[in-house]
Amino acid sequence: MNLLEYTFSGKKVTYYLDDSLSSLQNKVPVNRSVIITDETVYQAYAGQLAGFQTIVIPAGEQHKNQATVNHILDELIRMEADRQSFVIGLGGGVVTDIAGFAASVYMRGIRFGFVPTTILGQVDASIGGKNGIDAGIYKNIIGVIRQPEFILFDHTLLQTLPQEQWVNGFAEIIKHACIRDAQLFALLEQKKLEDFQQDHQLLAELIRRNVDIKSGVVAKDEFETGDRKLLNFGHTIGHAVENTYELLHGFAVSIGMVAACSISGTVSGFSVPEQERVLKVLQQYGLPIYLEFDKKRVFEILKMDKKRVREEISFVLLKTIGHAVIQKIPLTELEELIQKMSD
Amino acid sequence: MNLLEYTFSGKKVTYYLDDSLSSLQNKVPVNRSVIITDETVYQAYAGQLAGFQTIVIPAGEQHKNQATVNHILDELIRMEADRQSFVIGLGGGVVTDIAGFAASVYMRGIRFGFVPTTILGQVDASIGGKNGIDAGIYKNIIGVIRQPEFILFDHTLLQTLPQEQWVNGFAEIIKHACIRDAQLFALLEQKKLEDFQQDHQLLAELIRRNVDIKSGVVAKDEFETGDRKLLNFGHTIGHAVENTYELLHGFAVSIGMVAACSISGTVSGFSVPEQERVLKVLQQYGLPIYLEFDKKRVFEILKMDKKRVREEISFVLLKTIGHAVIQKIPLTELEELIQKMSD
Repeated sequence: MNLLEYTFSGKKVTYYLDDSLSSLQNKVPVNRSVIITDETVYQAYAGQLAGFQTIVIPAGEQHKNQATVNHILDELIRMEADRQSFVIGLGGGVVTDIAGFAASVYMRGIRFGFVPTTILGQVDASIGGKNGIDAGIYKNIIGVIRQPEFILFDHTLLQTLPQEQWVNGFAEIIKHACIRDAQLFALLEQKKLEDFQQDHQLLAELIRRNVDIKSGVVAKDEFETGDRKLLNFGHTIGHAVENTYELLHGFAVSIGMVAACSISGTVSGFSVPEQERVLKVLQQYGLPIYLEFDKKRVFEILKMDKKRVREEISFVLLKTIGHAVIQKIPLTELEELIQKMSD
Repeated sequence: MNLLEYTFSGKKVTYYLDDSLSSLQNKVPVNRSVIITDETVYQAYAGQLAGFQTIVIPAGEQHKNQATVNHILDELIRMEADRQSFVIGLGGGVVTDIAGFAASVYMRGIRFGFVPTTILGQVDASIGGKNGIDAGIYKNIIGVIRQPEFILFDHTLLQTLPQEQWVNGFAEIIKHACIRDAQLFALLEQKKLEDFQQDHQLLAELIRRNVDIKSGVVAKDEFETGDRKLLNFGHTIGHAVENTYELLHGFAVSIGMVAACSISGTVSGFSVPEQERVLKVLQQYGLPIYLEFDKKRVFEILKMDKKRVREEISFVLLKTIGHAVIQKIPLTELEELIQKMSD
């Protein structure tokens, strides 16, 4: 077990790295805690949750909405949860996003912690305090920024993940490498997915490195006025295609990174050989690099992106692998760039 | 016009005292602003809102719920509101509570300001950053604490208020006097409601004094770990009777203050003559001091109060007029005290 602490706007968040779900009962007051999880995770781990009250929500991004939040809030009221209660989100990004949001608005905010059960959750979604839900096709448009008390990482939870969930998580790992860590990118080029699945130590180090990249960026810019925006690499077009085509988040981000690499080629001088290296790594980890999408429809959604301010959008571009920049692109120009992308 | 600034946890809030609704267009970017108001207020002031986009919600506490928030969020999306947009809550406490909450969760929080149109709103509800909604009979159980950019006070808006809304607001004014300001209490004893309705200067001073009491308390304890709790005087039992009996907030708080005075007599030595002075002032301003309520049912709701932590409730008691204290009362004892209150 490794303990790490990050401070976000004066609030300390404890990371229990390479720890175990079974130790949760030593970290929170069990009789005052409520675990929020989804049906899939509950079926797999119900045996390890003895003594905890639980709220089980249906699995899947389509349930990351107001109706599910209302259900959770009603359950918290029914359980007589109070300001000393502790909410724990146990699950993938959907569960931790929604649990963090519900805890943030219940009684104007009670304490919460996360136990992410997916790669995507462990390297990205559970970190940084963004909690929220979707409204129709608009992703995360309702939410707050509020940090959990702790995040508990148990790598053994990943063993039961279906293969596509492993692939899903590696999109964000590749993203972190692209924007911030050329060395990590080189490591990813040398390895393949099975290497990380089979070598616990290698996986633990990979997760720690990604936790560190994301937390470091967020700690310096919690409210996303500057560098935190870099983490949106691949997400602008990614989000726009994600809900339209009901893709897994990582798959959509992969498509988004491919598009962003192409736009970077035109706008920020990202070289063709490096563009090709990114595409190669994405494929190496089983991610899609091609999607025939309705460009007009995607652009309509993209116009509503949170990163848009009036007629411009803050777009994350690469200069080189490991070095990202933010550039404002007028919507009209972006529309042309998307139209121009090879069909 | 008077300008006042209060700082809450590092965030500056500007108060435009004794100002005018028509100056709103000089205080916010009109083309990026969305006014949230209710049907009653809209009918009265639509003529002064030229150029602003508006979202009009149905009037009344029964609409301070998730359905109304969802409607507002859908409208903000439809209007393509973005992170530079500005939400203005124009109305009574219900409108400002709900507008502040919607703005706090839209895109993880955009800027907002308030123009309170009732006495209750001007002396209490719009101040302090508590934004939220009800869930069924549980008042304000969903919400966040987040401060507005500004509050604009226009006393002429009060001229069209029905008499019961004037009475409604004076409950919180009397509350402020009870907990913090014996001199203000004495002034209230000397005057009557008509005096404040007829004398603009007297009213402006009264509002300023109440704004100052509430803001001062909140500025020292935004997240209610200490003295901010004093503002809950009369609200514990008040909230419990409010929704059960569909009373106006001030009327319910008046009943709650009467109950709290009686409990203060037993628990904190609040003298009988001073108890009688409080009852007399409440009556003088048209507030009810008696309600035959279902004590068992009210106690059931009270158990879910946000001020409850497990088996105790933080109760605000008076020692003397102008001097309130907080005391934890076990639920079992409180149940007895309520049962014992004269029927």
